[in-house]
Amino acid sequence: MQGAILLGVDGGGTKCRVRARYADGTAIGEASGGTANIFAGVDAALANIIAVSTAALQAGGLSADHLARSHAGLGLAGANVSSFAAELAARPMPFAAYALETDAVVACRGAHGGRDGAIAILGTGSAYVIRRGPAFTLLGGWGIAVSDQGSGADLGRSALSFALLALDGVVEETALCRDILAEFDRDPSALAEFAGAALPRDFGRFAPLVWERFDAGDAIALRVVGQGVALVEPMLRRLLQLGAPEIALLGGLAARYQPLFAANIQQRIVSPEGDAMDGALDLAATLLPAGVGA
Amino acid sequence: MQGAILLGVDGGGTKCRVRARYADGTAIGEASGGTANIFAGVDAALANIIAVSTAALQAGGLSADHLARSHAGLGLAGANVSSFAAELAARPMPFAAYALETDAVVACRGAHGGRDGAIAILGTGSAYVIRRGPAFTLLGGWGIAVSDQGSGADLGRSALSFALLALDGVVEETALCRDILAEFDRDPSALAEFAGAALPRDFGRFAPLVWERFDAGDAIALRVVGQGVALVEPMLRRLLQLGAPEIALLGGLAARYQPLFAANIQQRIVSPEGDAMDGALDLAATLLPAGVGA
Repeated sequence: MQGAILLGVDGGGTKCRVRARYADGTAIGEASGGTANIFAGVDAALANIIAVSTAALQAGGLSADHLARSHAGLGLAGANVSSFAAELAARPMPFAAYALETDAVVACRGAHGGRDGAIAILGTGSAYVIRRGPAFTLLGGWGIAVSDQGSGADLGRSALSFALLALDGVVEETALCRDILAEFDRDPSALAEFAGAALPRDFGRFAPLVWERFDAGDAIALRVVGQGVALVEPMLRRLLQLGAPEIALLGGLAARYQPLFAANIQQRIVSPEGDAMDGALDLAATLLPAGVGA
Repeated sequence: MQGAILLGVDGGGTKCRVRARYADGTAIGEASGGTANIFAGVDAALANIIAVSTAALQAGGLSADHLARSHAGLGLAGANVSSFAAELAARPMPFAAYALETDAVVACRGAHGGRDGAIAILGTGSAYVIRRGPAFTLLGGWGIAVSDQGSGADLGRSALSFALLALDGVVEETALCRDILAEFDRDPSALAEFAGAALPRDFGRFAPLVWERFDAGDAIALRVVGQGVALVEPMLRRLLQLGAPEIALLGGLAARYQPLFAANIQQRIVSPEGDAMDGALDLAATLLPAGVGA
């Protein structure tokens, strides 16, 4: 008997991952599966959370019966939507207990091993979290229309915008612009139609091309990335100003951005200690009576 | 008998306006009515064009029978959508003849009395047209996602974006930010939800507030408008580079922007000679045999 079981659930936008361990730290197993995105519906999200949690237990040789002695830390995209927590609370839950936070907050828990610190998530979107003791503050991350500055979606959209300006002769038509325009047969109305209906991931598809051309010194790619850096840096400075001892960069663009930040920011950047599932396990551990567990 | 009748149809996004005159320049009448926006359907647009044209004739004491001896210049929003001209051509038309261009192109015809020149439309959206002899070139105007820089919608969206940054403490919370945040009860998720579903006109509703606060020296309003100027000026410079002798500024923001442009741009700015209906009449006149009309 290794005490209570903890389940760390990282329910991001596209998939759900669960890590199971005993309260003393002994590993049980891990699994991943379909989305726990609440925007697909609370019941569908919960069904996936239970299925993936069960699979994580089974990966360690434990049957589904053990869900009932499990304490689940749920880090779910959209958990900050006010109605969601109430809807979830109204459902029968198979766990001994559960606690709920957004996926960004558990990512911050995981990145700093339960200590104070901050994260910047630089992926298709962008968002920032700072932990000071028991309090987590979220910055940015309100979607591409008015937020998510410097994200992959934002870089991609900006590149498309420059491509149109190049077509009008307002900026130089660099290789980046030519590549983008070629995708639309150089028809601005086709590009505009795409952009009018594009989701963040659609704009984000152009981000790798921006970075590739950035590496080659493309003048427009330098401007697009430069704007991104100029938008992300103030957010990082704000995290430091709020007292973050260290900032971990997460997300697909983290490694690309890091070397471009000012030196006094870079010296405060650390590698994440653990991932969002570790953070969700940290959250799950808060459900145990004090003194229990590792 | 004052010869053929010309109808100048300005079919913008929200309403249709028609000016009727004889080929010798004698005025007949004017009328306005519902939208001739083709995105509401070709038949609905055509029905409004005919109704408003009839009303313009009747305003001058002429019956609907005179449509059949009228030459119509149609300046319609969306006329550059490739399928539209074909669809219109397939409909029975009540006019002796008609010619079709976008509303922006007839606005350029009207602004310069049929001579070479350029226009900048600075309203809810933004777009540019330059006329060189028989050729019209359109720049910008591809929608707020990737174009329409400096438009009212763009300024409004930018202000919302700064309001969110103010809430995060990343920029100073000026009166402009406070006013905007108050509209959303200082709830960033309410602002984000609005922005995610907002149409250009919804963002544009915040533009008058930006200009009002700009007049009062609000630091964020100065940044928002400054960005607008920095985005519009390169388009105006491009029009000059392409050979525009003069630029007329049109749209609701024209008077606000004009004093902010660099001196060497301002000295090329002129007041429009005529409006889009005059431009549509200029287009209609191209349908007459050479030598006929004023």
